[in-house]
Amino acid sequence: MAGEEKVQVFGFRSGSYSRRVELALKLKGVDYEHIDEDMLNNNKSDLLLKYNPIYKKVPVLVHNGKPISESRVILEYIEETWMESYAILPKDPYQRALARFWAKYIDDKVVPAIEKAFRSNEEEREKRIEEAHEMLEPLEKELQNKLFFGGDKIGFVDIVGLVLPGWMHASEEAAGFELLTTHKFPNLNKWIQDYMNHSVAKEVLPQKDFLVAFLNKVVFGRNN
Amino acid sequence: MAGEEKVQVFGFRSGSYSRRVELALKLKGVDYEHIDEDMLNNNKSDLLLKYNPIYKKVPVLVHNGKPISESRVILEYIEETWMESYAILPKDPYQRALARFWAKYIDDKVVPAIEKAFRSNEEEREKRIEEAHEMLEPLEKELQNKLFFGGDKIGFVDIVGLVLPGWMHASEEAAGFELLTTHKFPNLNKWIQDYMNHSVAKEVLPQKDFLVAFLNKVVFGRNN
Repeated sequence: MAGEEKVQVFGFRSGSYSRRVELALKLKGVDYEHIDEDMLNNNKSDLLLKYNPIYKKVPVLVHNGKPISESRVILEYIEETWMESYAILPKDPYQRALARFWAKYIDDKVVPAIEKAFRSNEEEREKRIEEAHEMLEPLEKELQNKLFFGGDKIGFVDIVGLVLPGWMHASEEAAGFELLTTHKFPNLNKWIQDYMNHSVAKEVLPQKDFLVAFLNKVVFGRNN
Repeated sequence: MAGEEKVQVFGFRSGSYSRRVELALKLKGVDYEHIDEDMLNNNKSDLLLKYNPIYKKVPVLVHNGKPISESRVILEYIEETWMESYAILPKDPYQRALARFWAKYIDDKVVPAIEKAFRSNEEEREKRIEEAHEMLEPLEKELQNKLFFGGDKIGFVDIVGLVLPGWMHASEEAAGFELLTTHKFPNLNKWIQDYMNHSVAKEVLPQKDFLVAFLNKVVFGRNN
């Protein structure tokens, strides 16, 4: 079986959703082929459109020809398909529920609030930062006495939270202000540091310089 | 163990998210206590606020004192906790991924589009109906040659889709126009009929007359 397995990830190199899928596969030791979609210029390949006709977006995992989209759905699939290696979710149903809850919370509440803060103009900035802080506080509390959300190792919530170690510092640099202050968020800052130093995770985190240039160009419309 | 189990659902009798949880428990044959929250008047009990401090909303499942919120997360927990009875999700990881995909699609795309259509004013109505139809079409296609999304029995996607058999007819009556026409959506209409006739599901579907009165009062602000 192992010899016949074909695992493909249609993704975007700096996209935090795509990188979730890659990180999960790498943690599990699953070899895969990465097909880079040109999301910057919105050039979507015919294969991507075929595999994800509903959302027409990355990431898509194609396992032996069968496509799956939506990153959290893909992560659950990866966990169930390659069960014997590295556990992404805890075994206990209640702990699994908590992990799913926080992962959903990151997608529904944290990511939009952070994006709004970084895209805010000066007038509304203070309010948007406050809102983002409010959304980040429960995560800060969750990390109390823990190395990762998954305990002593990277788990489901950490993988979904990849956008923070992946983009926070670059976004702060491009936007010109600090959002995740060490003073208010010591746990999250330590977690980001540990995440960036993690032997597997650091392979998939996007390069800060690239992101800063990307944000300056695409989000802030600056052409330096 | 069975004798010591305590299962509570903090819910809202006519809320389609709360009813998902009740339907899943009933399908599994799990006894539970329903604690009705007065969501109509936004009176939230102290217990609800304690159990769901993040979202402060129903449904919350409390199993032996441990609270879980977010209905899709709760459904996964129910599936994993009472595994021996009625399967909500298929066994095959790929089929499970598809079920999770469509369930998320209903929450992210279908429900908001339907709500927008029913709340639209006459000027924008045609456009909003068209948008809702566009979101419903993939579901119509999914039901081709199937009794339920779960195959020959109610499964994860059906449970998440409870809003359609639960609210569609009442919403159409209150709004004064038909959204889910039999002509365009024969499969979905047949599915709604089968759902409403299902021996377990019909116990949890809200009463149409109550919903029409509720919609007239709360959504359309009519006082008849």
